[in-house]
Amino acid sequence: MAEQKATNVTWHDQAVTLEDRQKLNGHKGVVVWFTGLSGCGKSSVANAVDRLLHNKGVHTFLLDGDNIRLGLNRNLSFSPEDRTENIRRIGEVAKLFSSSATVVLTAFISPYQADRDQVRALLPDGGFVECYVNASLETCESRDPKGLYKKARAGEITGFTGIDAPYEAPTNSELELDSDAKGIEELATEVVAFLETKGFLTA
Amino acid sequence: MAEQKATNVTWHDQAVTLEDRQKLNGHKGVVVWFTGLSGCGKSSVANAVDRLLHNKGVHTFLLDGDNIRLGLNRNLSFSPEDRTENIRRIGEVAKLFSSSATVVLTAFISPYQADRDQVRALLPDGGFVECYVNASLETCESRDPKGLYKKARAGEITGFTGIDAPYEAPTNSELELDSDAKGIEELATEVVAFLETKGFLTA
Repeated sequence: MAEQKATNVTWHDQAVTLEDRQKLNGHKGVVVWFTGLSGCGKSSVANAVDRLLHNKGVHTFLLDGDNIRLGLNRNLSFSPEDRTENIRRIGEVAKLFSSSATVVLTAFISPYQADRDQVRALLPDGGFVECYVNASLETCESRDPKGLYKKARAGEITGFTGIDAPYEAPTNSELELDSDAKGIEELATEVVAFLETKGFLTA
Repeated sequence: MAEQKATNVTWHDQAVTLEDRQKLNGHKGVVVWFTGLSGCGKSSVANAVDRLLHNKGVHTFLLDGDNIRLGLNRNLSFSPEDRTENIRRIGEVAKLFSSSATVVLTAFISPYQADRDQVRALLPDGGFVECYVNASLETCESRDPKGLYKKARAGEITGFTGIDAPYEAPTNSELELDSDAKGIEELATEVVAFLETKGFLTA
């Protein structure tokens, strides 16, 4: 847990409440946290879910690994402590979006269970849906959409998850998607069905 | 400008575009950046604007100084460099919300012009509305809603804006609100009228 540095700060309730925002949007806020190896299909599934939900009139937002590293987290590296701070900040941003009654989709490798658990702890009970996009290293490496595995195998990138940095697979996630066997649209449909079943898509 | 640390990251376009989100919400995204001394009425005006816009069915979000310092920016102090990083991160978060076709209201002292200008530079042309909530130090100190001026005068808080830390008043803001002379609701109405006139409240 990051140390609280600023003192003389107090929480302020706001005029427009979460309930007000849920009513306007017609649904609840929730964070669907996609995790998995590079190339497992996190971003593709998240984008497909985004499209399906948007077409239903659901207010969504997608937080994507690289885009955040080019903006909010541009001052963070891939060192273990910076990866932790990376996920901490994203968790806080996801919480803000969720508290605006938005369905937040996040696509980050997020290799450490402790970091994912810390995000879970930030959110209300049930408001964090850990979604393990499970593809074998062989599958991911054969896809290698960004050519990064090739670079990592050649030693041009170090600290690469799955090669010379660990990936701690979720053991107790709300959802596990079989990305070795199924296609993007099928997996996205599973996620939307889960959200519907759990009541997130109504106010 | 914060240094870009992560390499091997590239921007990804998303399946659901800003235009899609504007169409769903029925209006554009914009950042209304309230700046001014502690006690000038930033949070009160921002909350009143939030309520007025919400009642019109506008999708809004309010980023408030203390709340952010208890979450995303809990690991930042009030040192000059941490204040700069504080505003940089908030600017990036405001940009994310704005890119979801949300009207973002931010209430931060944000005393340095260079920091505010950096946020402006992050956003599309016209997408940053600097709103100077202008109240004299005398007014703010007489209100002293959190008792912080009293503590600062007693030396119990150091680096307090307006007392022993500078406030650089905007010289070229889109909006200037006279918080010495006018009440919260009147000022909030001015802000909403500005947004309407500029076309932000239609898609």
